[in-house]
Amino acid sequence: MTKATGGESVTLDLLKEKTAEFAKERNWDQFHSPRNLLLALVGEVGELSEIFQWRGEVPKGLSDWKEEDKVHLGEELSDVLLYLVRLSDICGIDLGKAALRKVGLNAIKYPAAGKGSSEQT
Amino acid sequence: MTKATGGESVTLDLLKEKTAEFAKERNWDQFHSPRNLLLALVGEVGELSEIFQWRGEVPKGLSDWKEEDKVHLGEELSDVLLYLVRLSDICGIDLGKAALRKVGLNAIKYPAAGKGSSEQT
Amino acid sequence: MTKATGGESVTLDLLKEKTAEFAKERNWDQFHSPRNLLLALVGEVGELSEIFQWRGEVPKGLSDWKEEDKVHLGEELSDVLLYLVRLSDICGIDLGKAALRKVGLNAIKYPAAGKGSSEQT
Amino acid sequence: MTKATGGESVTLDLLKEKTAEFAKERNWDQFHSPRNLLLALVGEVGELSEIFQWRGEVPKGLSDWKEEDKVHLGEELSDVLLYLVRLSDICGIDLGKAALRKVGLNAIKYPAAGKGSSEQT
Repeated sequence: MTKATGGESVTLDLLKEKTAEFAKERNWDQFHSPRNLLLALVGEVGELSEIFQWRGEVPKGLSDWKEEDKVHLGEELSDVLLYLVRLSDICGIDLGKAALRKVGLNAIKYPAAGKGSSEQT
Repeated sequence: MTKATGGESVTLDLLKEKTAEFAKERNWDQFHSPRNLLLALVGEVGELSEIFQWRGEVPKGLSDWKEEDKVHLGEELSDVLLYLVRLSDICGIDLGKAALRKVGLNAIKYPAAGKGSSEQT
Repeated sequence: MTKATGGESVTLDLLKEKTAEFAKERNWDQFHSPRNLLLALVGEVGELSEIFQWRGEVPKGLSDWKEEDKVHLGEELSDVLLYLVRLSDICGIDLGKAALRKVGLNAIKYPAAGKGSSEQT
Repeated sequence: MTKATGGESVTLDLLKEKTAEFAKERNWDQFHSPRNLLLALVGEVGELSEIFQWRGEVPKGLSDWKEEDKVHLGEELSDVLLYLVRLSDICGIDLGKAALRKVGLNAIKYPAAGKGSSEQT
């Protein structure tokens, strides 16, 4: 079991282990089919959106948010992440490896040099 | 800059650095407001859903999927993850720390012992 | 004001009027910017997904669902519809007209004759 | 079959008939299970979000949008609507009736009088 000590950065493998263990201990593996997990993820994205829905534009760093709202936001971001990690695991996808590969693909698709228009697509 | 060597597990901090660097090199920071990134994330969740939409139930491990479909799935899962990491960064949320905290909260909310009904809620 | 009498079919215009009136009476027009409404819609799609998330495949007609669950489903489907109608209105889009036009475009894109493979794309 | 003539308002029943007919003519009923349609709806919500994702706040009426972007928006709003109508039909839910009922429930939940704070929740 990977250990997360004090100052170390959290790995996707650690979260994978923790969510797998969590499901196993509660006998929830039976519910964790790919599409069930995908719909649960969509549900959490909905809750994340609800935090932002009536606020209009929001400044970077959320400087004018109450501390409790930031904590709530952290929880909803985490819920999305945990289901994403679990869905990847159940599908047999190495999410960390896939993410690094995708960053590489994006760099080819959107070259940094000559991106003069600075227009995100 | 954190380095990802051969067999090491990918950390959320590494992905945060990579997505921040990616945006900076393309002068995309100007587009990366919290709600822009949130809507981009919703867009990627849509693309993820499209992979699963006409398949009916899907077996764990995707045993009957073509290799190219699994690769495509890894890319869409990654797109969701990368925007989630970027959104957290722009909001000033430490996603890894928040996720570990949330796992702890979930364990309190859904105790493993006495969960006799085995019903996921 | 369009009237909905007994057996008549509900029109999109009626729902547009009702949601506009509802917002006006509560002084909520100030909150109903396009992106606020879009995020509210995403939130409702999340709640809709939550109804289906742990069920595995679900039969057409929901024959084995409890009546209260069907009522709840009707409410979440409605929430999505009401925000969709309101978003369209605020954007100046005639949703009914656009939908009929889209059905026509789809018929061109996916011709009925010669669709021998019967594969939805 | 309900007919849509010139100036009449589009009804949800008309769209229900048209989407049912469309699926039948293409032999797509076999794909239209509740969860397949729900995931297709999520996919369309993603495409709708993509239209808004890099724009920052957007004015009501989309006064500064190009005509072709408005047309595109109408198409994506329609795609969401058509899948919502189809999903409701397949689930045996009368969407128009449910929506009118929900407007009534909302009016009870959020009374117009005494809503002095004008804060949408």
